[in-house]
Amino acid sequence: MTMELTFLGTGSAYPSPSRGASAVALRYEGECWLFDCGEGTQTQFMRSQLKAEQVQLEPHLVAERDTTIVPQEMQNWLKGKISKIFITHLHGDHLFGLPGLLCTVSLQSSSLSNKQPIEIYGPIGLRKFLRTSMELSHSQLVFPYVVHELLPTEDQCFPEEWREPCALKTDDQLHPQELQGKTIYLNPQEDCYNLVTHEQFIVKAFRLFHRIPSFGFVIEERKRPGRLQTQKLKEMGVHPGPLYGKLKNGQTITLDNGVTVFPMDVLEAPLPGRKICILGDCSRVVGDMSKNLCIDADVLVHEATLDDSQSDKAEEHGHCTPKTAAEFAKSCKVKRLVLTHFSQRYKPTALTNAGDDDVMELKTQAKLVLEGQEVTLAEDFMVIEIPLNKTKQEISSAH
Amino acid sequence: MTMELTFLGTGSAYPSPSRGASAVALRYEGECWLFDCGEGTQTQFMRSQLKAEQVQLEPHLVAERDTTIVPQEMQNWLKGKISKIFITHLHGDHLFGLPGLLCTVSLQSSSLSNKQPIEIYGPIGLRKFLRTSMELSHSQLVFPYVVHELLPTEDQCFPEEWREPCALKTDDQLHPQELQGKTIYLNPQEDCYNLVTHEQFIVKAFRLFHRIPSFGFVIEERKRPGRLQTQKLKEMGVHPGPLYGKLKNGQTITLDNGVTVFPMDVLEAPLPGRKICILGDCSRVVGDMSKNLCIDADVLVHEATLDDSQSDKAEEHGHCTPKTAAEFAKSCKVKRLVLTHFSQRYKPTALTNAGDDDVMELKTQAKLVLEGQEVTLAEDFMVIEIPLNKTKQEISSAH
Repeated sequence: MTMELTFLGTGSAYPSPSRGASAVALRYEGECWLFDCGEGTQTQFMRSQLKAEQVQLEPHLVAERDTTIVPQEMQNWLKGKISKIFITHLHGDHLFGLPGLLCTVSLQSSSLSNKQPIEIYGPIGLRKFLRTSMELSHSQLVFPYVVHELLPTEDQCFPEEWREPCALKTDDQLHPQELQGKTIYLNPQEDCYNLVTHEQFIVKAFRLFHRIPSFGFVIEERKRPGRLQTQKLKEMGVHPGPLYGKLKNGQTITLDNGVTVFPMDVLEAPLPGRKICILGDCSRVVGDMSKNLCIDADVLVHEATLDDSQSDKAEEHGHCTPKTAAEFAKSCKVKRLVLTHFSQRYKPTALTNAGDDDVMELKTQAKLVLEGQEVTLAEDFMVIEIPLNKTKQEISSAH
Repeated sequence: MTMELTFLGTGSAYPSPSRGASAVALRYEGECWLFDCGEGTQTQFMRSQLKAEQVQLEPHLVAERDTTIVPQEMQNWLKGKISKIFITHLHGDHLFGLPGLLCTVSLQSSSLSNKQPIEIYGPIGLRKFLRTSMELSHSQLVFPYVVHELLPTEDQCFPEEWREPCALKTDDQLHPQELQGKTIYLNPQEDCYNLVTHEQFIVKAFRLFHRIPSFGFVIEERKRPGRLQTQKLKEMGVHPGPLYGKLKNGQTITLDNGVTVFPMDVLEAPLPGRKICILGDCSRVVGDMSKNLCIDADVLVHEATLDDSQSDKAEEHGHCTPKTAAEFAKSCKVKRLVLTHFSQRYKPTALTNAGDDDVMELKTQAKLVLEGQEVTLAEDFMVIEIPLNKTKQEISSAH
């Protein structure tokens, strides 16, 4: 049940040696999901701790692999790991690494391995970009992929940058490894896009305002059943065994003495699942109800391209400063705000020289708004673990 | 008159932390030309010594620049430098860095600076790739660009990978910063494509066989006039002054005593210019006369993806080994062979651990063929200077 974010690129506009272009990986349920894929993301992956977490192939698959082009030791780095990719918006610093990443994952995958498609979500136009890039470069994959496109609304961007969706559709043939994706429309009741519905979690998207349409993504685990009140059960004469499992799974049981025990009587309140919100570039959220999706998030990953002294410039480019990011985090009562997507002028602290703009200033500015709440400045290769929400009992027994 | 190659990526298939994807920069005549542009080339540029060679902007231009997004110190790294880009073939590891590189060069250029277009040459399909990438990512440049497409022939690739040129054309509108490029056809008399004709140099392309059509590029300086035979001129009564300049420029002069002096009588033999050949991925050259273009090259940059023990596999993937590369270099009598585009299994020597495949083995294999001729294994950031060809007098006076 590990849930862990790895920042692969934390710079804005272009990849530099000190900050890669935008990309965040989420490890969850044995899979890896990627949020944005700027140029160089695949190399950042190889440099990160994610590389080391190899899924070992069966020996007969290893023998079958072509070890002449790709060295043995690197063949497994992403094997079976990246299953979903989310693109917040189509600016190059969030997108241009995607075709190359897919090609490299393919080179490093066994042709006999898992044939589940990689599911890719992003704004309309993404399918055409990827298909054209793959086609013209004669790229073939050993697995299928599918692009699901989100349809933005006109109030998400500068008027001069709006493009009619019909102009962004593609009527070409599917790429040989491409499956037909969906078009995902805004659900006007909930003010969001429903992307994934799974028994363990759901993924939604909501609208952001930027120079071009941009999106935020919410990954929310479903509630976990509360703990069994074992003391109460013992008093009722129910002892540890299969009946405990049935109750935990929500089944009503009848004891030998004829007493009926309902799960709600012996289970503590259900535990909220974890919630992570990852926003693309934006100067603000669009839609009255969008904010509600981020309420009580465990982690909110938010851009802060420039510092507060540059707020006019930030707004002019469709970006935020620490103050605006922190105000949003505060209004959503998020537990931890992680700022990222910094102008390349703000080097990571370890690389800052005298006279440089100090990225720590951005943290100070966010903290002015967010008293008491945690603020983190992202750096390339930083890992943030999101622990399970504990029960009161779990918390007290840990002390 | 500096002529200098900088290797920005020397790995095949994908960029890795030890070898970037394919890219070589040629510094020449105050410009920078790029040969191939795999993913991450812009970051490799920033890491290389080329970054330091900044063209200083006029102070009023510096003031006009937007220093909030791009830090001052990095704004000039490519200012006015990259003027031509050559793409050998459309595989992603030679191509996927191109849209991002253009965007970053633009971000770091003054909007008031040189408005000469960046000229881009490559196989048909390149224009559509670039236009689609720039359009869908809403990328705007502060300078124009133009894509000139080479029309390959069907015998340049595996039959199953051949695409009819008409399917690779684009009938979309030009990108706002795109100028209409040319289609460049094979010149059947010379077995080559004439790309650039300049008073100082010419650039030609020739055909290579690979999985998909691939090209080699030849950059050849024109002959320099020979040195004036000053002793002979003195004996004729001609003394240093404007007449020397006229003779050097090829003008016939008449002396006060009525004697006519022809340049050919007082100039040494013209000096050959320098010649550099940079080949894309290939298993061999196509066309009987293509080889002639590389004769006596000062430097031949040739791929050697795998070592000689893997020659069948190399051929099967449309690649070369050191032996085939060296045989070609020998047949062309090139002065220096530079091998590059190594499988990522061959790490740079400094990063090789016990048990790894040793890239030095590839040098040994090439040397078996090329007795006496120089062989170099490219590494990322390696710089190779190509000195002027000296006159006999220059050589003797240096000793």
